Order: sequence, then C-alpha cells, then structure tokens
Amino acid sequence: MSKKADMNKGKITRERILGKAAALFNSRGYFGASMSDLMEATGMEKGGIYNHFESKELLALQAFDHAVQTNLEIIMNRVDSREGAVNKLLELTDAFADVVENSPITGGCPLLNSAVESDDAHPVLRERVKVAMSELKDYIERLIDDAVASGEIKLDMPSSDFALIIISTLEGGGMLSRLYGDYGQLQLICKHVKTLVRSQSKV
Amino acid sequence: MSKKADMNKGKITRERILGKAAALFNSRGYFGASMSDLMEATGMEKGGIYNHFESKELLALQAFDHAVQTNLEIIMNRVDSREGAVNKLLELTDAFADVVENSPITGGCPLLNSAVESDDAHPVLRERVKVAMSELKDYIERLIDDAVASGEIKLDMPSSDFALIIISTLEGGGMLSRLYGDYGQLQLICKHVKTLVRSQSKV
Repeated sequence: MSKKADMNKGKITRERILGKAAALFNSRGYFGASMSDLMEATGMEKGGIYNHFESKELLALQAFDHAVQTNLEIIMNRVDSREGAVNKLLELTDAFADVVENSPITGGCPLLNSAVESDDAHPVLRERVKVAMSELKDYIERLIDDAVASGEIKLDMPSSDFALIIISTLEGGGMLSRLYGDYGQLQLICKHVKTLVRSQSKV
Repeated sequence: MSKKADMNKGKITRERILGKAAALFNSRGYFGASMSDLMEATGMEKGGIYNHFESKELLALQAFDHAVQTNLEIIMNRVDSREGAVNKLLELTDAFADVVENSPITGGCPLLNSAVESDDAHPVLRERVKVAMSELKDYIERLIDDAVASGEIKLDMPSSDFALIIISTLEGGGMLSRLYGDYGQLQLICKHVKTLVRSQSKV
C-alpha cells in the first residue's frame, strides 16, 4: 500500500474509533466506560486504539468534541433550511429534541451528560463542556437577536436570558425523557418552548 | 459497652457513612467514586465500611435515597411554612434552587445527577431515580392542583404537564448553574419559573 493510502486508512480508522467512542462515552459516561468497553465497541485491541489516541482521557475529550459537533451540525442544517427568524427558533427546538432521541451519537445530549458528570469530577472535560455549551448558547442568542432585529419578536428580557431559558428547559426535558424512556415528555417540553417563543412573537 | 449502646453506635456510624457517601456519589458519580474515595471521605477502612454496607452498589443506592430524602425534606419544610397554594409553588421554586446550591449533600441535584448517569448505564439505580423523580413530580402536581382548586390559578394544560415543565426548567437551570459555577444562572431560571406560575395566576 502506498504511503498516501496508508494515511487515508489511518484517518478512516481514527474517525471510526471516534464515532464509536463518542457514543460509548455519551451513554456510559467518562468514568463508566472502561478500556474493555472501548475495545468491545471498536472491535480493536488496546494497542490499536492507543496507536491513534495517546490515552483514554485524550480520546474522551476528542470524542466529546466529535459528539457535540455532530449534533450541532444536524441542528444548524435544519435551522438553515428554514426562512424567517421565528421559524428558525421553532426549528431549533424541534431539531434539538430530535437529536436527543435520534442522533447517531446515542445516549442523549452530550452537553448535558458531560456537564453533569464533569462539574465536580473532571475539570478538563468541564472546561470543554463550558466552551461547547457557550457555543450553543451564542448560536441561540443570535437567532433571537435576528428575530428581534427583524421585528418578529419583542423581548421583555435580554436575549441572553431567553437563550438560557430555552437551553435549561430543553436540557431538563431531555433528561426526563431519557430517564423514563418516554419521548412524549420531551415533545411536551418542546411544545412549551415553542409556546414561549411564539408568546414573544409580534406577528 | 452495653449491647444497646453498641447498637446506637452502629447506627450513628452507619448514618455518618451514608451522609459522606451521599455527597461523594452525588459529586463524583457512581462510577467516578472509587472505594478509596469512600475510605478517604469517611476516614474508615474498607472492612469498616463493608461492616455496615454489603457492597459499593448497595451503599450507592442507599446513599442516593438519603440524598433525595434530605433535599426533599428541606424543600417540603419550606413549602409547608408558607400559606396559600401559589405562595407554596413560588417557595418550592426558591427552595429547589437553594438546595441545588446549598444542600448538605453537595454536588447539585441528586435526581439530575443520577438520572443522567444511570439512564444508559445502571438500570437498578435508574429505577430508583424514576421512583424518586415521580415523587417530586407528584408533590409539585398536588401543589398545582391545590392552587387550581382554591381558584388561585387557572391552567390551560393538565397539572401533570405543568409539573413536568417546572421540573425540566429547574433541573436544566441547575445543570447550567453548576457547569459555569454561576448561581446567577439558576436564579434567573428560578425567576422565569415564578413568572410562569404567576402568569397562570388569577388573583
């Protein structure tokens, strides 16, 4: 095999490990997923995994980034497909719920999962989660600002506060939905968030 | 020492282990807390802990119950101290936020923490969390029903739906607050929940 083909193969293997590890860590947690779980999920020996990632810690951090980016891309693509700022906010809400339930990265929202696990127990992961959560918050805030700028909604609070309310409600709903294995609970919460958005709506 | 004094001493030691273990598991998670963490937190040898609890698993389950009951008692005592159904709901909201921040069981809401950790990874703990979460939900639902019955609020949805919305929003707010180490975020969410309650208010 040529050197280039070798590099491509390496990159493909690396991506495959990341995808499997992301779902595993997201489902079982950083502390709950063992090296043998990782070996089982990837079908690889420990040495094979370590060829691509120096340590469980580094693999977990990159798997977290991979999980978040996968989900954010799905959400943003759906939001982009809609016209109108309020419609984009409503689509974000539905897309968030869908991703919690149906993302290729199984296990629910990686932001919620890793926030709860890391806040007292894993400072490095926690910093990573803060950055990613702020990325989501800023994104929602921009959608809200656009809706205010276009005159579609009128807020009686700063857009950053409304973004926090939307995230809190959806993340809490995702937690309940996954705890009970009852997606209806998240759909109910989703409907409530959309009512909140529409109640700010001037049109 | 008499047999009775021995039993009392045993009970006190058992309670002390439970309290320390509850805070440890709630902060680091079931999988994140090791036996040596438990030994350090309790200041006891492994054998001493196993004298009172058969296994890490059984200790964790009882520590979870202890954490939830401790917090629910604080919340319910505060709610009981208020007159009027809407005032009780508003007090519940404040008390919940206070408990996430200031409970003797450090680490945030044990319902949220254990729900997120157990949903894909620990079926026995997950069942325990479902029961405890339903206890909180039923309690809030009864407060809402009382407020409807007394004519203080008028709901445009079933009280069980409004209870789910309150829990989702508060739990999500607690997660954000603890992630960022910024209690202001939970206070903001708390204010929003109180606005939701008041917006149903007829008086």
